[in-house]
Amino acid sequence: MNVMVIHGPNLNLLGTREPEVYGSQTLADINKMLEDEAKGLGITLKTTQSNSEGALVDAVQAAAKWAQVILINPGAYTHTSIALRDAIAGVSVPTIEVHLSNVHAREEFRRHSFISPVAVGQICGFGIESYRLALHAARKLASPK
Amino acid sequence: MNVMVIHGPNLNLLGTREPEVYGSQTLADINKMLEDEAKGLGITLKTTQSNSEGALVDAVQAAAKWAQVILINPGAYTHTSIALRDAIAGVSVPTIEVHLSNVHAREEFRRHSFISPVAVGQICGFGIESYRLALHAARKLASPK
Amino acid sequence: MNVMVIHGPNLNLLGTREPEVYGSQTLADINKMLEDEAKGLGITLKTTQSNSEGALVDAVQAAAKWAQVILINPGAYTHTSIALRDAIAGVSVPTIEVHLSNVHAREEFRRHSFISPVAVGQICGFGIESYRLALHAARKLASPK
Amino acid sequence: MNVMVIHGPNLNLLGTREPEVYGSQTLADINKMLEDEAKGLGITLKTTQSNSEGALVDAVQAAAKWAQVILINPGAYTHTSIALRDAIAGVSVPTIEVHLSNVHAREEFRRHSFISPVAVGQICGFGIESYRLALHAARKLASPK
Amino acid sequence: MNVMVIHGPNLNLLGTREPEVYGSQTLADINKMLEDEAKGLGITLKTTQSNSEGALVDAVQAAAKWAQVILINPGAYTHTSIALRDAIAGVSVPTIEVHLSNVHAREEFRRHSFISPVAVGQICGFGIESYRLALHAARKLASPK
Amino acid sequence: MNVMVIHGPNLNLLGTREPEVYGSQTLADINKMLEDEAKGLGITLKTTQSNSEGALVDAVQAAAKWAQVILINPGAYTHTSIALRDAIAGVSVPTIEVHLSNVHAREEFRRHSFISPVAVGQICGFGIESYRLALHAARKLASPK
Amino acid sequence: MNVMVIHGPNLNLLGTREPEVYGSQTLADINKMLEDEAKGLGITLKTTQSNSEGALVDAVQAAAKWAQVILINPGAYTHTSIALRDAIAGVSVPTIEVHLSNVHAREEFRRHSFISPVAVGQICGFGIESYRLALHAARKLASPK
Amino acid sequence: MNVMVIHGPNLNLLGTREPEVYGSQTLADINKMLEDEAKGLGITLKTTQSNSEGALVDAVQAAAKWAQVILINPGAYTHTSIALRDAIAGVSVPTIEVHLSNVHAREEFRRHSFISPVAVGQICGFGIESYRLALHAARKLASPK
Amino acid sequence: MNVMVIHGPNLNLLGTREPEVYGSQTLADINKMLEDEAKGLGITLKTTQSNSEGALVDAVQAAAKWAQVILINPGAYTHTSIALRDAIAGVSVPTIEVHLSNVHAREEFRRHSFISPVAVGQICGFGIESYRLALHAARKLASPK
Amino acid sequence: MNVMVIHGPNLNLLGTREPEVYGSQTLADINKMLEDEAKGLGITLKTTQSNSEGALVDAVQAAAKWAQVILINPGAYTHTSIALRDAIAGVSVPTIEVHLSNVHAREEFRRHSFISPVAVGQICGFGIESYRLALHAARKLASPK
Amino acid sequence: MNVMVIHGPNLNLLGTREPEVYGSQTLADINKMLEDEAKGLGITLKTTQSNSEGALVDAVQAAAKWAQVILINPGAYTHTSIALRDAIAGVSVPTIEVHLSNVHAREEFRRHSFISPVAVGQICGFGIESYRLALHAARKLASPK
Amino acid sequence: MNVMVIHGPNLNLLGTREPEVYGSQTLADINKMLEDEAKGLGITLKTTQSNSEGALVDAVQAAAKWAQVILINPGAYTHTSIALRDAIAGVSVPTIEVHLSNVHAREEFRRHSFISPVAVGQICGFGIESYRLALHAARKLASPK
Repeated sequence: MNVMVIHGPNLNLLGTREPEVYGSQTLADINKMLEDEAKGLGITLKTTQSNSEGALVDAVQAAAKWAQVILINPGAYTHTSIALRDAIAGVSVPTIEVHLSNVHAREEFRRHSFISPVAVGQICGFGIESYRLALHAARKLASPK
Repeated sequence: MNVMVIHGPNLNLLGTREPEVYGSQTLADINKMLEDEAKGLGITLKTTQSNSEGALVDAVQAAAKWAQVILINPGAYTHTSIALRDAIAGVSVPTIEVHLSNVHAREEFRRHSFISPVAVGQICGFGIESYRLALHAARKLASPK
Repeated sequence: MNVMVIHGPNLNLLGTREPEVYGSQTLADINKMLEDEAKGLGITLKTTQSNSEGALVDAVQAAAKWAQVILINPGAYTHTSIALRDAIAGVSVPTIEVHLSNVHAREEFRRHSFISPVAVGQICGFGIESYRLALHAARKLASPK
Repeated sequence: MNVMVIHGPNLNLLGTREPEVYGSQTLADINKMLEDEAKGLGITLKTTQSNSEGALVDAVQAAAKWAQVILINPGAYTHTSIALRDAIAGVSVPTIEVHLSNVHAREEFRRHSFISPVAVGQICGFGIESYRLALHAARKLASPK
Repeated sequence: MNVMVIHGPNLNLLGTREPEVYGSQTLADINKMLEDEAKGLGITLKTTQSNSEGALVDAVQAAAKWAQVILINPGAYTHTSIALRDAIAGVSVPTIEVHLSNVHAREEFRRHSFISPVAVGQICGFGIESYRLALHAARKLASPK
Repeated sequence: MNVMVIHGPNLNLLGTREPEVYGSQTLADINKMLEDEAKGLGITLKTTQSNSEGALVDAVQAAAKWAQVILINPGAYTHTSIALRDAIAGVSVPTIEVHLSNVHAREEFRRHSFISPVAVGQICGFGIESYRLALHAARKLASPK
Repeated sequence: MNVMVIHGPNLNLLGTREPEVYGSQTLADINKMLEDEAKGLGITLKTTQSNSEGALVDAVQAAAKWAQVILINPGAYTHTSIALRDAIAGVSVPTIEVHLSNVHAREEFRRHSFISPVAVGQICGFGIESYRLALHAARKLASPK
Repeated sequence: MNVMVIHGPNLNLLGTREPEVYGSQTLADINKMLEDEAKGLGITLKTTQSNSEGALVDAVQAAAKWAQVILINPGAYTHTSIALRDAIAGVSVPTIEVHLSNVHAREEFRRHSFISPVAVGQICGFGIESYRLALHAARKLASPK
Repeated sequence: MNVMVIHGPNLNLLGTREPEVYGSQTLADINKMLEDEAKGLGITLKTTQSNSEGALVDAVQAAAKWAQVILINPGAYTHTSIALRDAIAGVSVPTIEVHLSNVHAREEFRRHSFISPVAVGQICGFGIESYRLALHAARKLASPK
Repeated sequence: MNVMVIHGPNLNLLGTREPEVYGSQTLADINKMLEDEAKGLGITLKTTQSNSEGALVDAVQAAAKWAQVILINPGAYTHTSIALRDAIAGVSVPTIEVHLSNVHAREEFRRHSFISPVAVGQICGFGIESYRLALHAARKLASPK
Repeated sequence: MNVMVIHGPNLNLLGTREPEVYGSQTLADINKMLEDEAKGLGITLKTTQSNSEGALVDAVQAAAKWAQVILINPGAYTHTSIALRDAIAGVSVPTIEVHLSNVHAREEFRRHSFISPVAVGQICGFGIESYRLALHAARKLASPK
Repeated sequence: MNVMVIHGPNLNLLGTREPEVYGSQTLADINKMLEDEAKGLGITLKTTQSNSEGALVDAVQAAAKWAQVILINPGAYTHTSIALRDAIAGVSVPTIEVHLSNVHAREEFRRHSFISPVAVGQICGFGIESYRLALHAARKLASPK
């Protein structure tokens, strides 16, 4: 089973950016943890990150040719990108929305998501554990029984 | 480790209520699955369900005396109950919000949650798998390392 | 044919509560009138009242096991209860919404109903005659021809 | 007792227009049914239909000289016509608002009615049965005892 | 003179719940203080608390048969309960709204009260002193001179 | 100098319609008063009334061929008719908006006017005196010095 | 192939009304151009214009009996008429919405259209060329290949 | 008959301030015109101007002891001053609202008036003629016959 | 202990202004009552009133040099004055907001207070008793035990 | 005559993405059709596509140096990109907005366009025919006669 | 070159008022710094401060007779005063808006400015440096080269 | 001291784009002026421009490794980019927001800034002088004394 993990804008800052909100682990740490976990689940993993909305749209389109499930943390584009939403709706790959922080407990403008309505589900607020849970959810989506 | 699972209004209808939205498993099935999973995780579990906002507030208050983590699917009260929010904020037990369906993809009024801002995090959209993932998240909250 | 009549909050005050708005007849008078009318229509009737949202949800769920039609005056919960809406949508019993007063001619917040979208129809503004008309509508729903 | 029945815009399309929403009976069928029912209730009936807001205002003003009660299905003008509202408020004839479909369960813009606040009451969602119930309500208004 | 004091949801947590907002005194302390004060004012006092909206509606209705004034701290239901508002408006007992904290200085959703428009007045922000002042206001209402 | 006076919907009810709001004089009385006044001002007057938005648009278009000033009381169409607004903006005849009642002191929906932004000015709240003042204003528009 | 062209309110003013917005050609010029163009496309054309919402509803209903496609410039009723929307939705004739000016670049209230959601498509901003393009679109709708 | 004329903020700039909006006449010119006109109508006139909201409140209160009618051009305070509204409502002197420009045709924030609902009526858009018409309206208010 | 009492706009009209809303006692009566009460509480009192927002800001700033507590009835400025809010927040004197009437039960625009979030608490709806209670609250603030 | 055709995000998915909404033809098919059509009209055509907002801004800026008209289908950026709007407004090349689907009949957030106010006009809802019509409109813009 | 510096409400509290927001320097310090700086720039400076909206309007009007540029920190009136806006728009002196704090990063109601649209530009967030920069901007306005 | 200057979308059009709004100087002119000014202030300067949101996020992240202060003119992304906001908040480099035009005096949608709340301050409306003032502000930030 193939899973594409797409990290959105500013996630490459992890570990240095507002650690009281996002924790002290780096994006490399998260990717390492995910790859370890993926092995145990029989999942082949690819990961990518971009600060560009267009590049993320490209990534979703590319993922559609390889992955059975997409894991995406759209970061700030969660709240502003209809293009990303259209990309996810346009490919036929089930997509899981992940956030490190509890976006619902932050600024008002972070409470609206253009992505959620086209995702299968959402996991947020558990730090990097959000990603690990999402990987398990992906595993389950592929073999629900 | 003790975890209290609180099911909100109409979840006792599961299996019969709009199965295309909520799936065909009953609440008993979910509780059974959770108890099995809990054993493997070294978690002692209690579960309860009520259609009454006041009874759910009571349940949260009671849970605070016994549980290290609360798992709550507040159902419709997610969107209307400040009393439930205040109960969760008022006790000092980390709480995880769970939904079977992807609430963000449904009616507009289901996109606002009074509960999320006082929860640790939210998992929604994965059917009963949402609960299983939440139990793992609870496990992790108690022993983050 | 079985019809369950569910009266919402403060309807037990009828006859004493703001009679210029709600009239001088008591809830017992209404139930008596409905039972008399029901006999003529070959309808078996049960009635219940509660001030509790949760108890009303319970009542709707219970009605689903016995009644072919539910008549409900959700009172103030009309405007605030998604739990009641979900209960009605969750059971598969056609439901008729009734109001004594013309809710559309009162405070702004009484003009929005969470219940109407999941009801078959609405009758309001005719005092206790609203209930009598609703009983006839129920009769018709069961045998449309 | 005299009752004026006023049908608003597009009701002349009944039977052909979106039958899954409005049913398969024509306006003539409805008028026929109403006239039969009226006889049994000792009511003299007149009916009229127009697609023009102004003509409906005229009809309400004219009705005021003859009818004890007006039955009106304002159709789309329910949501846009203050002129019709003013006409109903301006004549002193009690008016009952009728809708074939459950307007509250449709598009958002159909949930606001300029007419309801000046009507005695509203009946909606029961197809042509809405009209029949309204006729009975009219009968009762004239002789409440 | 009889005064009914009704405490709303989560007030039973007082002393343990967010003490930096609500202070360290328990509900029993407040009731004790009120009873002492009541004696000096020639007031017979009853107190009750519930987490349930319906039970609070019941309490208001019951109070109407005995009390000359109701003191109510509706807690979270202040902002969500039309049922409680209707109960207060439906009985003819003057009601005083009390809050421990200054609700106007907190989250936006706490700035709207369904209760205030049907209360005589409101006292908030003085901790348990809010209750004591309200008792004096009640005394005055009964004998304004 | 030629002035066209256009009366909108329900103004033909004047004298019978809600006299506490609109006074007891009929539309004929107003037209008579205006004609008397017009003579003294050297104004040739025509008056018309319609309940139909389209007919009022027609009247504005027709007036443009004859009148130097239009006096219009758009009644309810003040608040809903962009067609009437476009007609006034489309002809190049200065137009004065008149209301018998103080529309700004009534329901919220009467406080917005589609007509005012394309009128020269507005006179409201003085009963039929509003019309007389408007006629004087018209006189002045034609010969400002 | 039959095409009905329906011109809405104030379009009869064309050529004189605000020529800087709407151009200097008259409605007759437009109809002439359309008829010439129609011949080349093998289309039989009828045209009509009215300032009355009701008459436009009538026209849409009448067109349904003859035309394969309706071309409509609803003018100001674009933004206010649900009756016209219902007429278009109620007949089963594909309808194309046309505007001379770019309505999206004008006042805020011209940016909302009740008609667009029930039309096949919209062409606006090209002056009378908008109509010519719409005729070609109509031709294509009838024979898409 | 005594009439108090109260000019609000920035009206002392008249003649120099944005003459294309407000004309080239000074406040002294307006007062002179009003005094001339007043003589002919048997009215004793006082005039005052202030840029201060508080001073305008004082002026309204003072006027109440002498004038039968107040003419007020509240300028910018029209849109922001509840204090001025309360002063007008608090004294029992009929008040007429005057504006030089057509406030309804300007910025959105100038379309809401706190003053209008407590005034008898409003005259706007006719330049200094607005004042002259208002004086005649005042005359009529005092002797309506 | 020193307490400054600041009365806002139009409170000098008390006794004559809308007595059905504000009662028949004058401001002098209120000040006399407060002084009598203050003596019994060991409080030195100063009182002031102004219709000017700026003067009220001055008064708050001046009070800061002398008073331990400020009692303020900001009248209409409650709803419009950020300057007054800033003054209260800028000085470090605890401030109590008082209203004679129940502002929450009046016009919508009176339900928002710029002052409440920077006040200790609010007392409203008890007529002049509101002031007396506030004085007691002030007493308590200074010596909470 | 030179025309630049700019396709926005996800249009490269055409033919595979939601074919029930966007049809089964690919972007290459559209470009081919446009080039064929362009030849007949004496138009030299260039086409480009990007998923990146910035690249589309670049494309508009580049087009300005070569093209007489720009045809743009901004896709999702229609609703979110002020940068694209500024680019179009900033170059002095007339621009035509094209959409395959009828954007006005879809989700609420697709009904607002940042692009329309700076475009000459808009064509939407006719599938790839929208593009063909736009090319003809471009032709006409360049030689209006 | 003459520059008038106008300080709004509560700026006289500087140095004592919320120093964590506004810094520890007094208004006298700011004026001293400005005067020193002005000398170096060949600017003659006058400064004034008031807590009264009306007095600030007066100050703007007075400045117009002497100054080539106005520097204004409107404080709280930034967000509430249309009178001040009208004064600035009414005199023909270029005006620069200054704020000590970054008003855009504070309460929501501080993000709207009635003054900005009539000012040349805005400088905020740099403490007293905001004023110094504004003085340089004023210098440049007078001799742009 | 190092300062990074980041120019947002369409600023590369300067000199040709809407010169009446943005002036006739090119971006190269601005950069030249800034470099000259920087030398005098002992500042080492780098400048960059991009039309891409993602590239601007990259630029902010890169700047964090070298600059003590960032100067950014986010252009249209000011109003739409949460990603840019997050980048600025995520790096710990003080950032100054600059605009050539007075954004507060333009379209409504330009009055909201996602960037301002995370910037130190804002300078706008002075053309290229805005940049020069911002450079001085940067200088001061680094050595406040």
